[in-house]
Amino acid sequence: MARIFSGIQPSGELHIGNYLGAVKNWVQLQETHPGALFCVVDYHAITGAYDPAVLRARRWGMAKSLLAAGIDPAKCALFMQSDVPEHTELSWIFTTLTPLGDLERQTQFKDKSSKVESIPAGLLMYPVLQSADILLYRADSVPVGEDQIQHLELARDTARKWNAKFGQEYFPEPKPLLTPTRRIMGLDGQSKMSKSLGNTIGLMETDDEIWAKLRPAMTDPQRVRKTDVGRPEVCNIFQLHKAFSSAETVAHVDAQCRTAGWGCMDCKKVLQEGMVQELTPIRRRAEMLDTEPQRVLDALASGAETARGIARETMREVRGYMGLDAVTIPTDSPA
Amino acid sequence: MARIFSGIQPSGELHIGNYLGAVKNWVQLQETHPGALFCVVDYHAITGAYDPAVLRARRWGMAKSLLAAGIDPAKCALFMQSDVPEHTELSWIFTTLTPLGDLERQTQFKDKSSKVESIPAGLLMYPVLQSADILLYRADSVPVGEDQIQHLELARDTARKWNAKFGQEYFPEPKPLLTPTRRIMGLDGQSKMSKSLGNTIGLMETDDEIWAKLRPAMTDPQRVRKTDVGRPEVCNIFQLHKAFSSAETVAHVDAQCRTAGWGCMDCKKVLQEGMVQELTPIRRRAEMLDTEPQRVLDALASGAETARGIARETMREVRGYMGLDAVTIPTDSPA
Ligand code: SF4
Ligand code: SF4
Repeated sequence: MARIFSGIQPSGELHIGNYLGAVKNWVQLQETHPGALFCVVDYHAITGAYDPAVLRARRWGMAKSLLAAGIDPAKCALFMQSDVPEHTELSWIFTTLTPLGDLERQTQFKDKSSKVESIPAGLLMYPVLQSADILLYRADSVPVGEDQIQHLELARDTARKWNAKFGQEYFPEPKPLLTPTRRIMGLDGQSKMSKSLGNTIGLMETDDEIWAKLRPAMTDPQRVRKTDVGRPEVCNIFQLHKAFSSAETVAHVDAQCRTAGWGCMDCKKVLQEGMVQELTPIRRRAEMLDTEPQRVLDALASGAETARGIARETMREVRGYMGLDAVTIPTDSPA
Repeated sequence: MARIFSGIQPSGELHIGNYLGAVKNWVQLQETHPGALFCVVDYHAITGAYDPAVLRARRWGMAKSLLAAGIDPAKCALFMQSDVPEHTELSWIFTTLTPLGDLERQTQFKDKSSKVESIPAGLLMYPVLQSADILLYRADSVPVGEDQIQHLELARDTARKWNAKFGQEYFPEPKPLLTPTRRIMGLDGQSKMSKSLGNTIGLMETDDEIWAKLRPAMTDPQRVRKTDVGRPEVCNIFQLHKAFSSAETVAHVDAQCRTAGWGCMDCKKVLQEGMVQELTPIRRRAEMLDTEPQRVLDALASGAETARGIARETMREVRGYMGLDAVTIPTDSPA
């Protein structure tokens, strides 16, 4: 049985962008892959400048909204990375195995480092910790987006390198499970959805709040009047229909748009219905968790316990193979 | 009261080079600085190629000979770095704060990286882990040799940077306690003492073994005949006298040498007496530990427990200041 690991940044409450991009898929994977590990990677969230109080609140918001979105602690382990110090321990071991050149060649490093004056070492070492995140659980399948493929390749290299150096087929080479996401843009139709750009919809927003955001959202720019025919393939609202409406509705939207059978407001109203239908149970669970926040703590505690159990066993074995095991009285002396 | 931390590589049994260079000083410091922490830094020993069985044996050899040399687990904490995973945890945190440029400028990195084809990232990140080693215990005094001053400077920078970023005067800036060592060369008079060059004397060698190594050892090269006067200031044997003989004897050696009052063999015989006097109790303790190896395990276990107690408290506080503390139910929500 494949073991799944996936991580998400503690960016606060989920919005429909990271829900559709990753979390909705996790909710399905926990059914098909019992014992999956889902990790809020807070040790990855400290490479830049940040406010500790905000990070603290965002870790909570992310944990709460993952549970609201349907992550079920009875089916998987949901935990905070910093509750399992073995992540950094394995990361140090991998640091000793990873050529600097391989890290300097990572596209994300080149992009990000070109934008800052003083490059923190954490930016370079980030994918090493990411390899440790995965291999600590000897996960063999990692749901990733396209932009994470290169980092996963590094994790595969690292597994091969460690195995070769210490003569073991211990670490599996984790395979990507490409997340089946459509390319959905922000509501401005300009850039990726992100909370800081204000171009997305929070997973816990009310029906009215959803409508207030959908109403002014960008559609096919060539459809100026209601009588102009539209092109669903260039319209971001149509992409959202594919995510939130039934196949039947999607076909209907397509036909109505191409024939100017309805206006964009009609189209958005139908989308709102689909979104409300999917998001209402999530909002209800979030409200329940606000009333019983102890459930969030309990989920994280049980997830961390499961994760630590696996992590400790991995480190015990890894240290053993590396000659770094608990000191015992020698029976012979090869030195 | 100043808190002392110092680390030593697990290079196997001590020889007179690392004994005089560091450990003899530790034995004195444990008297003046109760609660000092002395660490066998095995996580620093894996950056190059190595044999796990050899590393395992060398960790044992180092631990045993530190105890034999007089490190007293009742006065200080002697422990194995890999028994305290918090070293790597704090190291990751410091990785996010340290500019890459500062690491690339380290002299030891430039030296070592110029000698290898593929540079492992561990070579670059080494001093970050070293900063974590020290600051994890909030040590304010670090006995170091000249060659470690630059790394300690980085630890001081890191303490300042963390304190500035998280608004706390939490980490002290550790000060160097320069180890009072004389520059003693290997017995070949050519290079630094090192086990791999075979130009040193093991701390546990017998009187005969000591003599077998002293007898052919390099002296003043201009003293070819017994009637030639010698120059103690250029003779390595004279440096060893300063380490192992009484002040009276050192003065006598100086006079006899300059007047050709005795031959180099006479001089070495006197040195051997001094060495035997200092090393015999060490060899006896080592023999005792070979009979009762459980004492080594007990010392390491109690040292690790002490170290872990301090390390956990530091990480609890550090994570708290950084917004990475154990998740609790929020009372307000700044995000
Ligand atoms: S009718 Fe719908 S799919 Fe067509 S342009 Fe308007 S919002 Fe987009
Ligand atoms: S007499 Fe002693 S100090 Fe002088 S050269 Fe010989 S060994 Fe060296």
